[in-house]
Amino acid sequence: MLSKNKIKFINALKKKKSRNEKGCFIAEGSKTVADLLASGMQARLICSTGGWMQSHSAFSQANIIEHIEITGKDMQKISSLKTPQEVLGVFVIPEYREKEEKLIRQISLVLDRIHDPGNLGTIIRIADWFGIQNVICSADTVDAFNPKTVQATMGSLASVNIFYRDLPELMKKFSGRSGFNIYGCFLEGENLYTAPLGNRGFIIMGSESHGISSYLMPFINRHLAIPSFSEGYATGAESLNVSVATGIVCSEFRRRKATADHHSK
Amino acid sequence: MLSKNKIKFINALKKKKSRNEKGCFIAEGSKTVADLLASGMQARLICSTGGWMQSHSAFSQANIIEHIEITGKDMQKISSLKTPQEVLGVFVIPEYREKEEKLIRQISLVLDRIHDPGNLGTIIRIADWFGIQNVICSADTVDAFNPKTVQATMGSLASVNIFYRDLPELMKKFSGRSGFNIYGCFLEGENLYTAPLGNRGFIIMGSESHGISSYLMPFINRHLAIPSFSEGYATGAESLNVSVATGIVCSEFRRRKATADHHSK
Repeated sequence: MLSKNKIKFINALKKKKSRNEKGCFIAEGSKTVADLLASGMQARLICSTGGWMQSHSAFSQANIIEHIEITGKDMQKISSLKTPQEVLGVFVIPEYREKEEKLIRQISLVLDRIHDPGNLGTIIRIADWFGIQNVICSADTVDAFNPKTVQATMGSLASVNIFYRDLPELMKKFSGRSGFNIYGCFLEGENLYTAPLGNRGFIIMGSESHGISSYLMPFINRHLAIPSFSEGYATGAESLNVSVATGIVCSEFRRRKATADHHSK
Repeated sequence: MLSKNKIKFINALKKKKSRNEKGCFIAEGSKTVADLLASGMQARLICSTGGWMQSHSAFSQANIIEHIEITGKDMQKISSLKTPQEVLGVFVIPEYREKEEKLIRQISLVLDRIHDPGNLGTIIRIADWFGIQNVICSADTVDAFNPKTVQATMGSLASVNIFYRDLPELMKKFSGRSGFNIYGCFLEGENLYTAPLGNRGFIIMGSESHGISSYLMPFINRHLAIPSFSEGYATGAESLNVSVATGIVCSEFRRRKATADHHSK
């Protein structure tokens, strides 16, 4: 039985402001909830129907503060989905810690004005796949704990640190440091496949419609572009989806690193 | 003024069956419609509000059979969008021609059971960017002329040939031909970065949830995998989004070709 207070609490979390105030976010659906639990995320509340919990008993109960078996009717009252699933979880937003001395020794992703929640979630999943530990978002990038983003991350929220920062301030701190590069991805620039790529720096990805903000340009010392091989009608595809472009760029950075590590052995 | 018959005709096109019968599909929104017109697609009907047509007069009127200026109220009657846009176009489905002698000399994408319309659209855009002329879909892949797919292709529908085929039959025809490879993408397989990649063949991408169908396995002679560099909680990200994986694989095929072309000069 779900109390009125709990229903109110869960529905409030659909808004970013409430998520920040309460330090919690919602995840829906068996796969998403199971992935988050498996990744060690702290669940404040799990609401399930039809015995979902019993059939997923492998999860450490220590990570679940409260579990309530509810009716399908109650699920409808709290779900954001057109077709409510058998489980909804309220998770604690992790406290990601930014360690400056770590950032300076790694490649991190920097996202400028990514507004589509699905794209942000897909990018967090890419970062996880390629072992990129930090994703730093501009203040006006969509919230990583938006239900649609959470769904697209497929559990990678636990493996990747996500920060929201004033990007020009961050750039000022890091630009010009020895061996540290600030890469930007553009439609025109150095060929990604042949440009020198290092193991320490920021890779800035801009929004599909507006590109990288002009106030970030002075900090970028390497302009990268994914070559097009289009033979289409005029100039062919105008651009790639931002999450696809991020995947291709991260893949090329890691391929080079793997090749360099192999040769240095 | 939009007649009742036209409203009925347009709304029928929201269903795949009607699209196939009438040979037409719907595109909504200024960018999508403009991209399709710029790519030379034939528009059977353009419905616009607020003088959209006048401000987009650069398009060859020869490609537009009929244009109607309608009211916002009429737009609501035909739009599939929550927030109807200023233009909706009814376009003629292109007659893509499959030339076997062309397929045998190229790299083509083969999609097995891709159900998400956004992913299919993004993949068509990737094919266009990387100059992959043919995308061959299994019969149970989502329809390329689904409104959501059309929107995600960003106009690439005119540059890429899209076919729906019985895949095992197609594989039988092409497998074992000299110099022609059938590549499949898996979670485990040869390292994409070091595996030999040719310029002639099929690249099969399977669905995110079910992978490549078992009946296609006997035809695959090269198993590729995108290496993971994850240091996440357990095994890290389980997989990449299928359109991101397709982008990374196509990029690597083209990077190799560019490198080979450069060295042979």
